Amino acid sequence: MSPIHRRFDPGKLAEDAARWIAQEVERAGAAGGVLGLSGGLDSAVTAALAARALGERALGLVMPCESRQLDEEHARLVARATGLRVERVSLDAAFAALAAATGCSGDARPPGRRPSREELARANLKPRLRMATLYCYANRLSYLVIGTSNKSELLLGYFTKHGDGAADILPLGALYKTEVRELARALGIPREVIEKPPSAGLWEGQTTEGELGLSYDDIDAALQALESGAAGGVRPEVLERVRALVAGASHKRAPAPVFLPRGAASGPAVRS
Amino acid sequence: MSPIHRRFDPGKLAEDAARWIAQEVERAGAAGGVLGLSGGLDSAVTAALAARALGERALGLVMPCESRQLDEEHARLVARATGLRVERVSLDAAFAALAAATGCSGDARPPGRRPSREELARANLKPRLRMATLYCYANRLSYLVIGTSNKSELLLGYFTKHGDGAADILPLGALYKTEVRELARALGIPREVIEKPPSAGLWEGQTTEGELGLSYDDIDAALQALESGAAGGVRPEVLERVRALVAGASHKRAPAPVFLPRGAASGPAVRS
Repeated sequence: MSPIHRRFDPGKLAEDAARWIAQEVERAGAAGGVLGLSGGLDSAVTAALAARALGERALGLVMPCESRQLDEEHARLVARATGLRVERVSLDAAFAALAAATGCSGDARPPGRRPSREELARANLKPRLRMATLYCYANRLSYLVIGTSNKSELLLGYFTKHGDGAADILPLGALYKTEVRELARALGIPREVIEKPPSAGLWEGQTTEGELGLSYDDIDAALQALESGAAGGVRPEVLERVRALVAGASHKRAPAPVFLPRGAASGPAVRS
Repeated sequence: MSPIHRRFDPGKLAEDAARWIAQEVERAGAAGGVLGLSGGLDSAVTAALAARALGERALGLVMPCESRQLDEEHARLVARATGLRVERVSLDAAFAALAAATGCSGDARPPGRRPSREELARANLKPRLRMATLYCYANRLSYLVIGTSNKSELLLGYFTKHGDGAADILPLGALYKTEVRELARALGIPREVIEKPPSAGLWEGQTTEGELGLSYDDIDAALQALESGAAGGVRPEVLERVRALVAGASHKRAPAPVFLPRGAASGPAVRS
């Protein structure tokens, strides 16, 4: 049984999502859209939608940064399969310089164990450099940055704040990971990309499911149970673990809290 | 006449704001707070509040990046005046490497004219590198990133998205620039810092008021008029210009739009 009970027609969904991307680009008065192509599933599906929506006005950036050669090969496969225009920006030198400046020395590839705080600080520089690169291209070309985060990641906080989580529009932000995978099949994403274990790619051997200690089938079933209020067949310990992750990540999804002096307007000033 | 009609006691305000910072740090389970010290007014006031709230658990980073020597001297003055602990992280090499990787070549210091799109793309790399550096220290130390943006800048969108606009908490986010200046006087911020023309410091000779073509007295009077609905004595052309800036910057203040498939939950999934 699929953990996701809602039904959708992947072909129709892809069509609607592509139309939405085109509308958002137009609404913003932008000339196109740029996205990061990691070789993973989410960016592959986003690439397919962006290419369909924007054609030549969609651009994918492959941004290796201590990355596996295989991921870059997968990104190339995706570009070929989706017809997305691609550029390569190697961030290895910029990363080395920034890691040196911030005192993040050494190798950040913990073999199987949880990364230390220091290793995490170093690893998080990578998605933030990619964000800066995407916005640089977006500024230059008057493009929007198209984010690749899915609903499961956003809810769990499984992204780097102001890194891969930072974008102008989020076409997959309301789709669970397991739904993105279904969509990928319908869009003809290469099998290698669909079947490889999800990973943030921050260090060698990192996998999302390994790091979280939960499968995406379990995660998505639990997220849906929390959303609907009906536990379904989800094990209580899984439900509790997912609930805790979602609660702990709320600061990653909400606007930064603002100090309100007495007598100031009641709502946060920045939202008006 | 001050453009701001609301009355406040700067000493009381500073006390409340410092208490709020301490509470937010505790609520997040963080060990302290880190902020960027530019040598400008907003970061000076934030530094004073953070030092008062957190003592040794507050850290200021001076992050020169093609910066003026004078700004760094001002940052040092502020550190001395406020007692804030300071570290220096030169971002010149990281910036050069990232600019080269992204193809942002050449010098980005337009002499008095509006910067080109290309120059802006290059200049925006700087606040984004600073953000990555602040979050690197925050990750490492379990600190929050304390933002320095004020209400006027946030409303006008006069900040770099996911750059200086990116932070975990915003102590000055509900205070107009002219109020921050009043607060600075009460906090004993050095006169040089209070009196120098506000600038994002992205290129030589840049000033906020020059770039916007409006003084902060006019800007804040217009923002307050827009908020209260009473035009007061604000000239119509100023009001219109400020209204347009605020409207055009809404995408910088709101969460990124999410595509909602038919049949999906009504609200954006990521806010639950």
